[in-house]
Order: sequence, then structure tokens, then C-alpha cells
Amino acid sequence: MADLDRFLISRLVEAALREDLGSGDITSAFTVDAEAGGQAVIVAKGGGVVAGLPVAEEVFRCLDPGLLFRAEVPEGGQVSRGDTVATLQGRLRTILSGERVALNFLQHLSGIATLTREFVARIEGLGCSIVDTRKTTPGLRLLEKYAVRVGGGRNHRFGLSDAILIKDNHIAACGSVAEAVKRCRNRVGHTLTVEVEVADTAQVAEAIEAGADMLLLDNMDVAALAEAVGLARELNPAVVLEASGGVTLENVRAVAATGVDIISVGALTHSAPALDLSLRVA
Amino acid sequence: MADLDRFLISRLVEAALREDLGSGDITSAFTVDAEAGGQAVIVAKGGGVVAGLPVAEEVFRCLDPGLLFRAEVPEGGQVSRGDTVATLQGRLRTILSGERVALNFLQHLSGIATLTREFVARIEGLGCSIVDTRKTTPGLRLLEKYAVRVGGGRNHRFGLSDAILIKDNHIAACGSVAEAVKRCRNRVGHTLTVEVEVADTAQVAEAIEAGADMLLLDNMDVAALAEAVGLARELNPAVVLEASGGVTLENVRAVAATGVDIISVGALTHSAPALDLSLRVA
Amino acid sequence: MADLDRFLISRLVEAALREDLGSGDITSAFTVDAEAGGQAVIVAKGGGVVAGLPVAEEVFRCLDPGLLFRAEVPEGGQVSRGDTVATLQGRLRTILSGERVALNFLQHLSGIATLTREFVARIEGLGCSIVDTRKTTPGLRLLEKYAVRVGGGRNHRFGLSDAILIKDNHIAACGSVAEAVKRCRNRVGHTLTVEVEVADTAQVAEAIEAGADMLLLDNMDVAALAEAVGLARELNPAVVLEASGGVTLENVRAVAATGVDIISVGALTHSAPALDLSLRVA
Amino acid sequence: MADLDRFLISRLVEAALREDLGSGDITSAFTVDAEAGGQAVIVAKGGGVVAGLPVAEEVFRCLDPGLLFRAEVPEGGQVSRGDTVATLQGRLRTILSGERVALNFLQHLSGIATLTREFVARIEGLGCSIVDTRKTTPGLRLLEKYAVRVGGGRNHRFGLSDAILIKDNHIAACGSVAEAVKRCRNRVGHTLTVEVEVADTAQVAEAIEAGADMLLLDNMDVAALAEAVGLARELNPAVVLEASGGVTLENVRAVAATGVDIISVGALTHSAPALDLSLRVA
Amino acid sequence: MADLDRFLISRLVEAALREDLGSGDITSAFTVDAEAGGQAVIVAKGGGVVAGLPVAEEVFRCLDPGLLFRAEVPEGGQVSRGDTVATLQGRLRTILSGERVALNFLQHLSGIATLTREFVARIEGLGCSIVDTRKTTPGLRLLEKYAVRVGGGRNHRFGLSDAILIKDNHIAACGSVAEAVKRCRNRVGHTLTVEVEVADTAQVAEAIEAGADMLLLDNMDVAALAEAVGLARELNPAVVLEASGGVTLENVRAVAATGVDIISVGALTHSAPALDLSLRVA
Amino acid sequence: MADLDRFLISRLVEAALREDLGSGDITSAFTVDAEAGGQAVIVAKGGGVVAGLPVAEEVFRCLDPGLLFRAEVPEGGQVSRGDTVATLQGRLRTILSGERVALNFLQHLSGIATLTREFVARIEGLGCSIVDTRKTTPGLRLLEKYAVRVGGGRNHRFGLSDAILIKDNHIAACGSVAEAVKRCRNRVGHTLTVEVEVADTAQVAEAIEAGADMLLLDNMDVAALAEAVGLARELNPAVVLEASGGVTLENVRAVAATGVDIISVGALTHSAPALDLSLRVA
Repeated sequence: MADLDRFLISRLVEAALREDLGSGDITSAFTVDAEAGGQAVIVAKGGGVVAGLPVAEEVFRCLDPGLLFRAEVPEGGQVSRGDTVATLQGRLRTILSGERVALNFLQHLSGIATLTREFVARIEGLGCSIVDTRKTTPGLRLLEKYAVRVGGGRNHRFGLSDAILIKDNHIAACGSVAEAVKRCRNRVGHTLTVEVEVADTAQVAEAIEAGADMLLLDNMDVAALAEAVGLARELNPAVVLEASGGVTLENVRAVAATGVDIISVGALTHSAPALDLSLRVA
Repeated sequence: MADLDRFLISRLVEAALREDLGSGDITSAFTVDAEAGGQAVIVAKGGGVVAGLPVAEEVFRCLDPGLLFRAEVPEGGQVSRGDTVATLQGRLRTILSGERVALNFLQHLSGIATLTREFVARIEGLGCSIVDTRKTTPGLRLLEKYAVRVGGGRNHRFGLSDAILIKDNHIAACGSVAEAVKRCRNRVGHTLTVEVEVADTAQVAEAIEAGADMLLLDNMDVAALAEAVGLARELNPAVVLEASGGVTLENVRAVAATGVDIISVGALTHSAPALDLSLRVA
Repeated sequence: MADLDRFLISRLVEAALREDLGSGDITSAFTVDAEAGGQAVIVAKGGGVVAGLPVAEEVFRCLDPGLLFRAEVPEGGQVSRGDTVATLQGRLRTILSGERVALNFLQHLSGIATLTREFVARIEGLGCSIVDTRKTTPGLRLLEKYAVRVGGGRNHRFGLSDAILIKDNHIAACGSVAEAVKRCRNRVGHTLTVEVEVADTAQVAEAIEAGADMLLLDNMDVAALAEAVGLARELNPAVVLEASGGVTLENVRAVAATGVDIISVGALTHSAPALDLSLRVA
Repeated sequence: MADLDRFLISRLVEAALREDLGSGDITSAFTVDAEAGGQAVIVAKGGGVVAGLPVAEEVFRCLDPGLLFRAEVPEGGQVSRGDTVATLQGRLRTILSGERVALNFLQHLSGIATLTREFVARIEGLGCSIVDTRKTTPGLRLLEKYAVRVGGGRNHRFGLSDAILIKDNHIAACGSVAEAVKRCRNRVGHTLTVEVEVADTAQVAEAIEAGADMLLLDNMDVAALAEAVGLARELNPAVVLEASGGVTLENVRAVAATGVDIISVGALTHSAPALDLSLRVA
Repeated sequence: MADLDRFLISRLVEAALREDLGSGDITSAFTVDAEAGGQAVIVAKGGGVVAGLPVAEEVFRCLDPGLLFRAEVPEGGQVSRGDTVATLQGRLRTILSGERVALNFLQHLSGIATLTREFVARIEGLGCSIVDTRKTTPGLRLLEKYAVRVGGGRNHRFGLSDAILIKDNHIAACGSVAEAVKRCRNRVGHTLTVEVEVADTAQVAEAIEAGADMLLLDNMDVAALAEAVGLARELNPAVVLEASGGVTLENVRAVAATGVDIISVGALTHSAPALDLSLRVA
Repeated sequence: MADLDRFLISRLVEAALREDLGSGDITSAFTVDAEAGGQAVIVAKGGGVVAGLPVAEEVFRCLDPGLLFRAEVPEGGQVSRGDTVATLQGRLRTILSGERVALNFLQHLSGIATLTREFVARIEGLGCSIVDTRKTTPGLRLLEKYAVRVGGGRNHRFGLSDAILIKDNHIAACGSVAEAVKRCRNRVGHTLTVEVEVADTAQVAEAIEAGADMLLLDNMDVAALAEAVGLARELNPAVVLEASGGVTLENVRAVAATGVDIISVGALTHSAPALDLSLRVA
């Protein structure tokens, strides 16, 4: 799970600390002796999947490299109310000054991992993956997509430059699906794939004939999805099929059962409630 | 409502655009002519309170100062499914390249404003305010607290330096509530206020005697809250009383009815689901 | 005194080093062997209050974490001409390359602390505080306000967002003091206080009636101040009274004797002469 | 005088605005209508030399490109108490929000220009120049050295990389003045000059023989200076001679009369009191 | 060709200007009147393909939005010695201050486009593409890869996160090609492709069987390449084949003739000589 | 040779790593165990002068302070194909993730040092220096000029603010060489030198009479150069003479033999081919 490079998160963590500290944590400065030591635990106040422990550790390390942070559950581990997530030992002021920022990261990312895990569990055994979207919180995409992986999901493209995704407006601007795919194929690098959003079976056929690597089956009901999947598989068994739009925990298994390879869920990153966590000084 | 300085959001908007654009919006570059014009609307796909229109406008302005963005509802306006939120006119490529970032801001902030409005509505007429917390998404506190104001709430402190909030750990480090308040009063600037988190009526009395401006009544049930409010008002009618912890749309009116001045709700910023919005090229 | 978070000053220190180093300290690179060691002392060439030792230390730490910096006087300590302020041991090149930047911070902040201490000394025993203003050097407000604290002063607001200060132009825009205070009270967060600048006794009364927490008595002579203080105390004994404008070391005791709680002095940060310090290689 | 590139100051101005605005100018936002217009003047409350008008203009331009700023005196112009320095016209909120930052720049830079002009005036007719040092306020060197030019002074080096200045510690590390100069000459680029700090006539001779372009005559009294100048001119009429250390308005003419080419004064940038300026809404 | 978003290059351009300007263009400030106008042309002093005109324009626009920059050849156009590339009209100071930075970008990018065009021309008609590598100048990858496109080449991956490229060390760490491919397939997002570097025909077969999308045929001579291509096509006609290592203008046609789809050439970005361009004031 | 301050390169190195890593090195993350150790060597695949070892070391240190990097040749050392340049020991993932960025710096800077050394060798014994120009790659001037020094060259000015260089356009704007020099002398700091570009002997004489410190003899053939040098030496033996324009390895000795002090070669930084280097895991 350890596929988050500490180097990449240092600036995010610093910016978050500066945002919270302002000109300094005056309450702690005025009430806690500069050298007083302390111990603390981060405990779960609800159940879920923990994500973001390396980020929380980086928060405290940024303030004081001497603070000891020990994860008590593995990244991606399931916790229940009352479980200890991590323990801290070091200067009490550092613990108190970093508390909120560390928890804000941890709660948000764990919330995403938890919701992702729920979606993944619903479709177990169907050979289908849950993926995220670009509907992420501005500035946090790297971390939110990491949390989706921690929760067992996989990542859709990270941004506008690392894959082609031809949507209806692009098709309209080109005149046809075939023309849009052709223009992209002619200029895009060989490492990048081409996905096309399709609205009906006619477009499914046109996109596959034009050589799309992947189809985004947008906002279709289960019956329409099943029909599109059947047609697509017939035309090109290797094409990757993605269902998108209106997917919930309730209907996700039915969607997966249509045979799509991938289901993208915007709510993973834009609407996952935070996991409730708390820091207690021992 | 226009209390968001455009100057202050420009860097956030730029960072979000860079995050999404990577090395460029290749799909639009390959399929849409550089000078092709277009029109688009942002429409609501669910009901709620719109917040963040100046941020969305800034996203498009950053990409192309010539793009016209016109808000069709006032900031803070209530919309229903199908309502037009804003219209855009300009280069089609700019509209498509900025679409996701603009919507990500708008959906997130509108989600917060919508949830805030619901909380505010539940306690109407009780002379009590809904406020946010520091449980915000790292990097977005300025905007999230703005969205709370748009939704009718008010802001708690922005960070660790603009107010004193003495919590249990600070009290423990000082030995007593009185000592903690005294140390803060001795050093804090005269413009800053002192709030103390109290757990029971004994602490209510001690904090008020020590001269606290505000009390944070943390995680008390309604009966305990009512008792604490009664005692506090008796000792100092001017003290500001804040209820915090476990407040939901279901119990918020009962909490407000205890007579507290302020109810803080972390969920406003850490767990509000996004408002569903969509951009359609006309 | 140690209420300056090292994390918060690292960027300021880095920027100052880059400003001075340009493409590198060529004189030291050409004349001093890369690994040659050395010892140095920072000595006072004039008398005053030392402030900024943690900043000076950070300057050298930034260039070389192996350099030893030892403060020989406590932060806020009084020194006389010839006193040793700090000792350094490590690479000679690092000592020479960091010398000017470290001294620039230390001289400037010590100058502020020294002047503040003089003002504070003049009003000893009168129960009045010396505070700074927003008339700070652009970019250095955090440090300059810290130096004021080191000198025994207290801080006014840090910027435009952490307190309300209604001035004559705001009053004019609202039509009256009462309306201005009301508009602010209606929207400001509960942790923030409201101060009103008043020009005469009529405004003193109006502001207090409107519920101002603090009054800024601007540019009044001692007689007018005394009258305003008397009236204000009568109307609300708890209102905080600030004298501002034209305060010097000569008249500050007379101003304090009028009974104001706070005297703000812009000169602390905009016109304090630097304390003369020098670094000598041993 | 217009030798300050606006491009180079934009980041400094932005940083200063962010420092002061924090999360926004709440007083103005709550009391002044967003679109209300206004006029204002910046007036002198003391006499001196104005410097920094382009910086002040940039402050307001940053907040609102539509605001009109008109300088009423030329950059470097002399003003007396009561003179109008500049006029502003535009949104009242912008004027009030930018006021303090604009004045902070203008007061500080004008203070430096004013003190520089005084030094320059004292040595009129002696063919000697007043120059600054590297004893500047961290982060503001570019602007402070500009203000020295506006005041009629000239600039010493901007940092450690744009000229060689061999001091006693460099000499000690090399063993002799001659060796230090030789090492520098061997490696430095041909566009850069070599200055050597000398303490007595023996070092004057040694430095000139070694080929120094300039001598820094450090902390010598007038008699010693005159002797050093005489010797130096005899050995090399073209060598540039700089006096430094302990120069005041009182003794600067005597120092200049010794025949040195240049007198460097650290106080220009580290101890110039601010010029008193004020903004008034018309 | 206009697929370079101006928004994305603004920071690069600003950084380059600050690098060159330092504390300001003193020669122009001292010799050219601030408001003096001028006209200039950028002319070719050698023949080649022009790339980077929008970057050069942005350089001048950054210094002065009022300067007019008109490209006289299209981006990607071929020029000969003496041809006019662009004309400028505006403040003479701006033209002189921006000259070097604009030319540095334009010469470097045109050099890359020119060399790319030569490689592309050599393999015309063979259905093979020239692509770049990650051997770019640190900080300029976005622009250098753009210049490759302008020259008629295509882009390999932009960095370590937008495609899988399994090299010998990755294979060694996994034990086998098959295991390496499997681990990547299990975790990588569906939009990303998997390329494997192979050294001989045994690895060609193993990689294709393991499901690689692309093979990097590294440092093979033409005979070995031809054999590898034959085998690979037999096993999977759709696999993309890339030749890499030791490709020169002399041998590129022979390499292309082996039937590979793509030839990557590090020299395009790390060793292309600059195109000689010059700015002349009219 | 160790005259490159590590502090100054940290941001360049970080930016280069972020450019290459994007959202992370997914290939290594998926195929190499997080804690697996490894050893590697950087070997030369061609012959040349090594420059940039401290930069390469910083790349790996940035990713993991625990990685050991040992230079096997001194900075500036000559290597032949097959020589080991450096050895690395530590986490295998770190080695693989940093490989490309480290090599990109090292190859580019070594290419510059190698070409510089060749030019320097051609003019050995003639008492003339090879210097660089401002024709550098945007963003890398500090490092490229360092590589020139490593190769045995010397540096021309670093940018527009650290020396005066009056070119034909400046002369035209002033009316004459004499006027241009006079305007600069009147305002420039005493540490800065004045160079004038001259086109013929008349300008040589005029510039020297006007007091120029250096002459740039631009684009003259060898005969014209010799004549200009002769005249200049006659008028002022101390004036520094620089030849520039059209200098190649073939003609550089003839140019130097004319007696100029300095030959500037733009190709050192804009057209040096990279030195071929490779990293091999042991």
C-alpha cells in the first residue's frame, strides 16, 4: 500500500500547517511549557478504513523532526469505534499544534477510503473495478486518488493530459465520433489511451469501429448498459467498458453485473463523509 | 454577500487549474479548433444553495480574460433541479478546459452552503447562530468558511492565531482552568478573545470566574447543556456560550433551545455532500 | 519568550538568504577552503534588548545543519556594548556567508524590542500596555510583532481579518457609528472583537451605546483623552480604551496616566533604529 | 528616476497584501457597499523626499485594475507637511483595503530617500558619493536600494555574488592580502570588481600592489582616513576609495573632505525613520 | 499546432525573466528613455524550424502588456538565414530588456523542432513515428516536448506517473517479466498502458504473453530489431514496438525499415544545437 | 571546484523531481518492494568532463536522506567510456525514481563542461580566457555558468543587473558612445563595470576615451580584431578586450592570438551536446 511518495506530499502538508497556524498557535504557546513532553493517541470514534497515516506523520515531522509517530493499524486497515489508530510521543506543544491538521487529512482520506471499500465490497466476485473521477477537491487530487487506491479502488486519469476522453462536446466540435477519434489518434503519444463517451448503441458501434480503447457508457440504465456491453463485446472483446453516472451503493452490483469492466463513482471524492477520529493526550 | 476578495482566491484557482491541466487539455486541443466559439450553461441537477460563483468565474478568467461568465442566480440563491446557475460565452476550448475545475469548486462550496442553510433553518427564531469549525479540507479553509457565511452561518476562528481556545489538554498542562485563563490574558493581544472548553458545571463556574469571554460546552446532552447555560447566565449574562459535538439536523433545534448562543458543526465543512451541477454546451 | 514557531520562519529566512547570496558568496568561495572550520561570536556594539536569536540560528541552520549556534543571552535579554550575544562553531564559509543575513534580522528585531522596552519602562506601574500597529515593514509583520512581545509590549491585530476596527471612513460609509457597529456585529464571527475609532466625546458615547468592545481614541491631547476616558468608564467600565497618535517617549507616561488601557505606537515597528551588532571570527 | 521595473515588484506587493488581508478586510466588507465609489488623497504629515509611488500604485492595481492612482509629486520630489502626494479614485473598499500596505511601502521608502538626501546634501561639491550597504531589511533590498537612488545616493553591491569584497576574515583565511586578491582574480569573472577592506596604511599599500580595484577604509578616524587616501592616491590614482563605519550627518562632510570617493552608510537602510504619510478619503 | 496553453507557460516565463533581470536591466534604464518607442525584428541567422513563438510573445507581454508582437512565420514554419521570424513594436526598453530571454526560449525550442523535423524527414513514408524521451532539460519538459510536436514528432510519456515502463531493474526486482507485468496490471489505472523493455527474443515472447501493450527494443542492431519485430508481430499484431538507443540521422531510416512503430531519440531534447536567431531594432 | 552552494540548488532539484514524478513513480511502486535495498553505479558511455555531481547527489538526498551517494571522480574530472562516475547505495526504489532527473542534470552540465574544456585547451598558453554568455537555458543559468567554471572557463555577467553592457541599440538611443558611457557612469554603483560593444576602430577609440572598462569586439574577423586590439592597447593598456561572435573550436586559437583577453562563446551553454551517462543497478 505504501505507494505514496513522502517527497510529493511535503508541500501540501506545509501549506495546510501554515493555513492553520497563521502567526502561531497562541493558546499552546501561552499555556504549555516549550519543552514539556507528552504522549497522545489517535482513536477512531467511528468505524471505517484508515488512509493517510503517512500524511499525518508528515504533519508532525514538519513541525518537529524529533516527534515519534507510530501507526497502530496498517494503512488501509479497518478500524472500529475505540480502536487506536496511532500513537505519538514528543513535545506536547507540537502534538497540540499539529493535531487539527493531521486529523483533517486523516479524516478526509479515511472517509474516501471507507466509502470506496463499501463500493468495492458490493461488487465482489464480478471482475469489475471501482474507479474515481476528476470530481475531486481542488488541490487534493493526488491524495484523494491515493485514498481511493487504499480503499481498494483504482484510478481514472489524474488530469486532462494523461489520457484522451472524448465527450459529447468534443464529438460535436468534430462532427462525428469517427472524426474525433481519428484526430486524437493522429496526434496523441503512443503511451496514451483513447476513451469515448457514448450515449447509445449506434455510438458504441461507431466508437469501436473508429478504434477507441475504452467506452464511457454515460448515464445508462441497467438494461441499456447490458445491451451496450453485449454489442461492444461482439465488436471488440478487448475494449474496456466503463459505466458512469447515478451509481449508488444500492445499484452498483446490478451495474457491475451488466459486464462492464469499470464503474466510476464521483461521490468517492466529492461526497464521502469524514471518518470520525480524535486525538487524546494520554 | 460579496465579501470574497478576488485577489485572495487567485492562487487557489491557479493551483487547481494546474493540477487538472497537467501538460495541457489534450482532448480539447486535438478535437476543437483553437478559435471556435461556444456558449454553455451551468445547470443544477439537484436542489440547494449556490456558493462559489466568483470562484468559478475566476477559473475561466484565468484561462482566458475574454470569456464572458454571467451568474444567473445570486450568490447564496436557492436553486432547484434544472435551474440555470450561470451562462458562459467565449472560446469553446476554454469552456471545456475549465469546466471540471470550475464545477469542482462550485459543487463543493454549494454543498457546504446548502447544508449550512439547512442547519440555520432548523433553529430559526431561537436567536442562535450556526458556526463552522477548523475541521476543514486542507488548503480550502478560506473558501469553505466563506461558503458557510453564504449559507447563513457564521465563522468560528480561522486558525490557531486569531483567538484563544483553551481545551482540556491546555488546562491539564497549566494545572487549572484559572491558571490557563490567567496565562493567556497576560500575554494575548487586547483584540483577541478567550474561550474555554468546559466539561461540567464546576468548570463552567471556574472558567467564568477566571474571566473567560466564551465557553465551549463540549459533548453535553441537552439536559446538561441547559443546566450549564442556566448557571453560566447567572454568573455572567454576557458570556458567549457555544454548544459543540454530536449536533445533527435532528437534534439541533433542541440544542439551540437550551439557550446557547452558538452551535458549532464540523460536518458543515468535512462531510457536506457536493451539490450536483453540470455544464452543458448550448 | 519562546513563542516563535521555527516552522513559520523558515520561508522568510530562506528568502532572505537567496536575496543576499544571489548566485553564491564568491568572495568566501574563492578565499576560504570548503572544509575549513572556524569559531565566531556575535557581539553587541551598543546597548539594548536582544530579539531574534532563533531567527539568526535558523539562518545558519539553513546553510548548514551541522553548524553550532549557541545563544549567550536569553531572548529578550538586555545587553551592553561589548557583550557576547551568541557564539558559532562550524565551517568558516558558512559563518561568513550567513553573517549579514543573520545580523540583519537580529539588528532589526533587537531594535524594535529595545524601543518597545523603553516605552514599556516609561509607563511602569500604571496598568497600561504598549501595543504595536499595522505600520510594519512589508513581509516582516510576523517577526516584528514578535519583537514587540519580546520587548514587553503586546500585539494589536495582525491584519485586516482578525478583528474589526471601524474608522472614520467606515462610519461615513454607514452614516453613523451605531449603524457601522450594527452591521459588523450582524456578520462577524463570535470570536472577533469590535473596536471603533472615535474623535470626540459624542462619538465615545455613541460607540459604547452601540456595543463596541474597544475604543480607539485617536490623536487626542491628554486633556481630551482624560475626559474621554472618564466618560467611557462611566458608560461601560469594561470597555477597552486605546490611545493612539503622536505618542513619544516624552509624553507616553502622561498619556498612560489618563487611564487608557492601551497605547499603540507605530514607531515601534516603522522607525526603531537597528541595534548595532557585529560578528567576529575568533 | 523611473528605473524600477514594475514586473520586479509585483510579487513583493502581492505578498504584502496577503500578509495584511489575511482572510479578507472584514471591516470594509461589512460597512462599505461593494460598488460604492470614493476619492482619496495621500498627504504628507511631515517633510521629506517621496519614494515608492510606483509601488503604492501597484498595491491598488493588484486589488483592482480599475482604480485610478495619480502621483501629485514626482518620484524623488521634496514634500512638506500638508502637501498632497497622490490622489486615488475608484471603489472605496479597494482604497480602504489597500491603504495600509501602500502607506507602509511609501513611508518606509520615503524615509530612506529622505535620510539619503540629507547625507548627500551635507557633502555637496566634494565629488564624493553616498552609498548604501547590505544592512537592509530582509526581503526588501531591491526596494531599499532603489530608495537610496531616489534620494540621490548610489548603490554598493546588491549581494554576495555581484562583486568581490575581501574582509579581514577572508584575508586571515588566505594568509595575506596579496594571496586573497590573487585567488579572487584567478577565478572571478572579468565583469566583477575586487574591493579589499584595509585597516592601516600597510594594508593600503599591500592591497593596491595586489591589484585591488577598490579599498574599503573601515572604521578609521578622519586623520587616518586622510593619510590612507594620500598614500593610496600616490600608489594608484585610479583606485576607488570607500570610507565606512561610524559615519553620521555630523561628521560626513569631514569624512568626504578626506578625499574618499565613496562613503557607505548602513543607517540609510537599517535605521531611517519612516516619513509620516496619511490617506484621507475626500 | 496551437496546442500550448498560455496559462501553463506563464510561470516559466516569469521565472526566466526574473533570472535574467536580477534587480533590473540597468543598462537600458540608464541609456533609454522610459517612454521611448521602438520597432524590432527577430531574424533567422540560420535555417530551421521555428518553435516557441507563443513563449516569446509571453515574455514581452509579461514585461509590458502594451507591446505588440506579431509572428511573421507560423509556428512550425521553416525559415532560412535572413528570414524575419517576428516583429515587435512598443517601448524600446521593454524590447531590449526582454530580448535575451525571448531569444533563449525561441532558439532552444526551434533547435529541438529543427532536429526533430530532420529525423522525421528521414523516415518519411515508412509509417513510423519519431518520439522524444524523458532526457529533457530539468524544468523545461513541457516546452521541449511541445517543440518535438512542432517538429513533427510525437511524445513519449511526460513523466513517471502517466505510463508504466518496466525496465530491466524492475524485472530483476520482480523475478520475471511476467511477474512484473502482472503486478502492474493489478494496480494500474485502466487508462494507463504498460510498456516493457526487452533485450532479446525470449523476452519479446515473454512480455507479449504477459500482456504488455508496448515493447521497448533497447539498443538492438538492425538485424536483431528486425527479428524481434517479426516475432512480436506474429505473437500479437497490435503490440506497439519501439526502437531505442544509438539512433542517429544516419541509421534512423534503417531502423524504421525494420517495421517498428516508434523510434525514440534522446538527442532531440538533450543535444539539439540552438537555432541562431537575432533581434534587431529597426 | 566546490563553489556551488547546496542551499542554492535545492529548489531547482525539487522542481525537477516534481516535474518527472508527477503523481508518483508508479512502475517502481508496483514492482519494487518499498524497503528493498540496492546498489548502483553511474558510468560514462562517452568521454568528457564531469560536472554536476553535487546536483546529482542532491536529487537522491531530496528523495531519501538515507541514500549514500559517493562520487568516484572529482568534480571536473575527465572520464572515458566505461569509467565509473559515482556509486549509490540505499533503497532501490529511490535509486530508480531519482535516476532520470539525476542523469539529466549530470549529462547536461557535463556536456557544457566538456565543450568548455575543449575551447580552453585550444587556446592554452595564450593568456586568454573562455567565457560564457547570457544565452543559457531558461531557469538553469546558475548551474550552466557553474559548469563553465568546472570546465575551466570563466563567467560573463549573470544577468542584466550585475554589469553594464552598452550595445548598439543603447548607443543609438543616446546618440553616441560617449553619451551612453557618461549616462551609465553617472548612475551605476561603483562596484559595477562598464563594457561597450564596438563595431569598428572609430568606436574603439571613442569608447576608450569615454572611459569604458571593457570593449566587446563583436563579430569581427581576425584581421579586424588584431587591428582593434592594437589600437585599444595603445590608448589604454588596462582596458579588457572581449571577442565575440562566430567563434568555433577551429578558429578560437586564431582569435585568441589577436591578443584579446576574453573570448565569449554562446555555444557553451546553448548548443553543447549532453555527455552520455548511464545508471546501472549492480
